[in-house]
Amino acid sequence: VHPLSAIAWTESGSVRILDQTLLPGEERYLDLATVDAVAEAISMLRVRGAPLIGIAGAMGATLAARGPNGSAVRLEDVLAGCDRLQSTRPTAVNLAWGLERMRRRARASAAQGADLLPALTAEANAIWEEDRLMCQRIGEAGLRLIQDGSTVLTHCNAGALATGGIGTALAPVYLAHQAGRGVKVVADETRPLLQGSRLTAWELLRAGIPVTVIADNMAASRLRRGDISCVIVGADRIAANGDVANKIGTYGVALAARAHGVPFYVAAPTSTFDFATANGTAIPIEERRADEVRSVHGKPVAAPGAAVWNPAFDVTPAELLTGYITDQGLLERDQLSTLIRQKS
Amino acid sequence: VHPLSAIAWTESGSVRILDQTLLPGEERYLDLATVDAVAEAISMLRVRGAPLIGIAGAMGATLAARGPNGSAVRLEDVLAGCDRLQSTRPTAVNLAWGLERMRRRARASAAQGADLLPALTAEANAIWEEDRLMCQRIGEAGLRLIQDGSTVLTHCNAGALATGGIGTALAPVYLAHQAGRGVKVVADETRPLLQGSRLTAWELLRAGIPVTVIADNMAASRLRRGDISCVIVGADRIAANGDVANKIGTYGVALAARAHGVPFYVAAPTSTFDFATANGTAIPIEERRADEVRSVHGKPVAAPGAAVWNPAFDVTPAELLTGYITDQGLLERDQLSTLIRQKS
Repeated sequence: VHPLSAIAWTESGSVRILDQTLLPGEERYLDLATVDAVAEAISMLRVRGAPLIGIAGAMGATLAARGPNGSAVRLEDVLAGCDRLQSTRPTAVNLAWGLERMRRRARASAAQGADLLPALTAEANAIWEEDRLMCQRIGEAGLRLIQDGSTVLTHCNAGALATGGIGTALAPVYLAHQAGRGVKVVADETRPLLQGSRLTAWELLRAGIPVTVIADNMAASRLRRGDISCVIVGADRIAANGDVANKIGTYGVALAARAHGVPFYVAAPTSTFDFATANGTAIPIEERRADEVRSVHGKPVAAPGAAVWNPAFDVTPAELLTGYITDQGLLERDQLSTLIRQKS
Repeated sequence: VHPLSAIAWTESGSVRILDQTLLPGEERYLDLATVDAVAEAISMLRVRGAPLIGIAGAMGATLAARGPNGSAVRLEDVLAGCDRLQSTRPTAVNLAWGLERMRRRARASAAQGADLLPALTAEANAIWEEDRLMCQRIGEAGLRLIQDGSTVLTHCNAGALATGGIGTALAPVYLAHQAGRGVKVVADETRPLLQGSRLTAWELLRAGIPVTVIADNMAASRLRRGDISCVIVGADRIAANGDVANKIGTYGVALAARAHGVPFYVAAPTSTFDFATANGTAIPIEERRADEVRSVHGKPVAAPGAAVWNPAFDVTPAELLTGYITDQGLLERDQLSTLIRQKS
């Protein structure tokens, strides 16, 4: 469906990533042959997006199982490689989860006296394939929300550049495009890191989908204008009551969508639902460096000496949501309880 | 009250402006000795803010009345100078209004056979002084909204850098600071041109007022947080029903303020009320160049080929407003009709 793969194996078994820090100016692929190289790419955000770094970590772990000239390696080396990779982004849940699967598989193979490399490669491919399928299912669940000629507004990047497949929020858009529905997208630029204008716009254009970039503060006016069919965004965590933590700015878009009766959907795998967290107020919100707001491309944009408040996420209360587009189908808010029963 | 003057006369009668395009990186003053130099400064936005360019235009017109070596000039030269200045920003109402006053004064002086220069200088000073007084009165009208330790959220720049005095939206803040109320400000950065982070933050810090810069999309979360006493913004035009056209992004802030019960005020001189315009839908919204969104400091931030929608203003419906802080006092929404009767 998408002409782009944010991650791939090379023929020699290295990990090929698209260096997202260079987008949209340059499309450069890096072939990473060592654990250290993959760790560097993850920590420098060359590869980003929660699902995608889970996959990158798992693929990176296979590099720890390649001894010099194809010789065998010890289990300890693989486990150390996993630790090295996990240390790059200590709070990334998918990364930790993927690497834990790799450790378990490595231990099981070692216990059976089997070669580690083929087992770990199979496990990394399984993680990747599951993610690709998850994206596809989200796309199918959301496809009916996008009629002929629809325009979808989205925030941040929850697309092919953030996953191993066609994304989460953008998955229904890609499938609608494939189905010839003439879908268009309005992308919030998403300050401070501009994932919307840099990444979402880039990957949609690569797939031939028309995209209009707006500054974040234009979303309310755009929603009033009446040409947005629905809003679809991703999610970092969804609480048991349906409150959604997602990229900062999502909440303001949800308020504006409600004011103008525009349906507002969150697209996420069911693994994003965290039923141990009662509601949004219990979700910790990471505050990031002031520099992200103070400068763009390293050039200052704020008065020196000004304080900065830079929360990475916000919480959108469940009552502002129309529904959840998941790999288990399209859920209305009142269907969450069913999901809770299934998972507990 | 404010340590800064965005505009001034030099001893030799030139017009001294602070080059706002260089802020916040550099504080450079330019002495403009010719009509062309003032016209360049206005058209390049070195001097900006509706009231301030009205004053700059009027002061610039006096330069047309200075012949070589202090010789007298003809009325035609002065009128041509006014036309030259007005052509720089054809839609700026204050500029046209100020220059019309200068033309009228020039014609009256010429008809009496009087020297043009002293008359025009007096008229420019009157325009400036009226603006300074207007700012002061707005400040006094809004002062009671700011209690000890209040934090005010504002959008864009409606301060000393936009007027001949202490601003409109920021005037109550400056008077509260002067009164020792420990006022603090949260400033939206205000994409695409970043007047909040570049200008508002700069002028507040210069006056010793603590300011925190946030990306525009953080305003909703900040308003939810509970530490914002009120929102105060400026206005470009206010329709007869009280709808307000102001910098793009104002509307989204107003929606979020309403959602969290935070009072939302518009500060503007009564001259901003346009009773010939029934409501906000009749206010034309300028759309500006795509480049402003596509790049920051000339560096691209959006995928090449992406379309851009870049409205300069939005309309906040009257029902989201708590009141209007004007040079004729603090008006509740239902007091607008009184103002309409006075003006018509």
